[in-house]
Amino acid sequence: MEFLKAHGTGNDFVVLPDLAGELELGAGLVAALCDRRFGIGADGVLRVVRTDACAESVPDSEGCTYFMDYRNADGSVAQMCGNGARVFAQYLWDAGWAPAGAVRFATRGGARLATLRNDGQVRVEMGLAQIGPTAMVNVPAAGRDWPATAVHVPNPHAVVFVSQLAEAGSLLAAPIVTPAEAFPEGANVEFVVVRAAGQLAMRVHERGVGETLSCGTGACAAAVAYLAGGTSDSAAVVQVDVPGGTLSVEVHSDLTVSLTGPVVTVAAGRIAADWLEARR
Amino acid sequence: MEFLKAHGTGNDFVVLPDLAGELELGAGLVAALCDRRFGIGADGVLRVVRTDACAESVPDSEGCTYFMDYRNADGSVAQMCGNGARVFAQYLWDAGWAPAGAVRFATRGGARLATLRNDGQVRVEMGLAQIGPTAMVNVPAAGRDWPATAVHVPNPHAVVFVSQLAEAGSLLAAPIVTPAEAFPEGANVEFVVVRAAGQLAMRVHERGVGETLSCGTGACAAAVAYLAGGTSDSAAVVQVDVPGGTLSVEVHSDLTVSLTGPVVTVAAGRIAADWLEARR
Repeated sequence: MEFLKAHGTGNDFVVLPDLAGELELGAGLVAALCDRRFGIGADGVLRVVRTDACAESVPDSEGCTYFMDYRNADGSVAQMCGNGARVFAQYLWDAGWAPAGAVRFATRGGARLATLRNDGQVRVEMGLAQIGPTAMVNVPAAGRDWPATAVHVPNPHAVVFVSQLAEAGSLLAAPIVTPAEAFPEGANVEFVVVRAAGQLAMRVHERGVGETLSCGTGACAAAVAYLAGGTSDSAAVVQVDVPGGTLSVEVHSDLTVSLTGPVVTVAAGRIAADWLEARR
Repeated sequence: MEFLKAHGTGNDFVVLPDLAGELELGAGLVAALCDRRFGIGADGVLRVVRTDACAESVPDSEGCTYFMDYRNADGSVAQMCGNGARVFAQYLWDAGWAPAGAVRFATRGGARLATLRNDGQVRVEMGLAQIGPTAMVNVPAAGRDWPATAVHVPNPHAVVFVSQLAEAGSLLAAPIVTPAEAFPEGANVEFVVVRAAGQLAMRVHERGVGETLSCGTGACAAAVAYLAGGTSDSAAVVQVDVPGGTLSVEVHSDLTVSLTGPVVTVAAGRIAADWLEARR
């Protein structure tokens, strides 16, 4: 089984080409591949499958040759992943499977258009963000509560503006987001500092994962909350520094957002047959 | 640049074949390769170089065709690594560079003989262990002190026998080992439970790394401390369960030890040229 490892601002992925849709990608195999000691190690798996060979019914896939089958590191099936979509597009271009420059592909969250910028960064149209009611975020270890802006991209986020990124403490335990009924599936929590007009720095705690080096939808949520927060800055492009690098988010007046950032290919190769056999 | 990723009881390595000794393996490149998000990810790098092509003067290398150039994940040069030596030998056999069954190779800590057992496990002769004076181990977060046995394999270990592995707490901070003058270069600390005669379970905090899934020399140190600790059990073979699997340590009356356990090859491939170029 061939694989490629790549990352976008430290959010890393195992890419598995499976054009004919023949790979049985069970949750156990995904988790084993993503294991950082016993496997390849990644935040998630991106299976590359032709839409017409895909057994799964994918929404809004008309005209899309490829389907991005994204799985979380724990093996669970997920709708979309912003940094993953950028890595996926770069893979299609590098493999010669899509014309360089632009590609539209299917995801469980709907079709996504990715474009390659002149500086080599990859931009993905992320769709519509929605701002929800004010929430509260509590970090028990820090002994503090903050008001937060709920933003759905469409996955749920609670964005907290702080004066220092260190205020949230170690983030070893998940922050508590209330009211719980506003986040029935939990929420990712972003702690955001405004460094200058249009320039944010962010830490993120991803639900079910912990603090991570980057979160594409989280960067989008932070930018939307920032622009909606009554700032006098009218810039529609917001730079978001995450621990793993820098992302750029463009926010339109209708709250459609795009995510731009670097993609780095680390290595490519084959999974050992014995290893794979033992985990099927 | 070709690579292979493999692990021994969860202690994982990037293996780099460099028979002609042409690779400039600086500390920065090693750390980048071992980075689990931005690189391949591993506890260390094993460069495979022919002894006669090696610029470095290696002790006791006569008759050894290959030199195991081991580096820690932070890029620092290290003498030896027990699980790494087992992975190294398996690589030589799989590559067809050494006759299957047995190979003697050079390391900075002296030549090592590895043998392939009938059950597929790899055994490495680890040389002479030395027992030092009683030490003390303090774990601030656990609020406790324990007496410990100092064992050098030849790297320094402090072995603590506990009734439950959980007693040492989270081990997020390094245990404090005293007297400091007995461990001028610090110490790895093993917390060991005797499960049955000749059967240990162990957690390990590696100096400069943190808690790990396995430590080959740590397992040897635990077995030596156990057999020297006045137990009535005379078995010279001690099973050591580590978080990443099970190792077997044979202790001879002169305190020479051997380490046996599984080696698992995960994947092989090539490092991306652009990635490598940016880190040279």
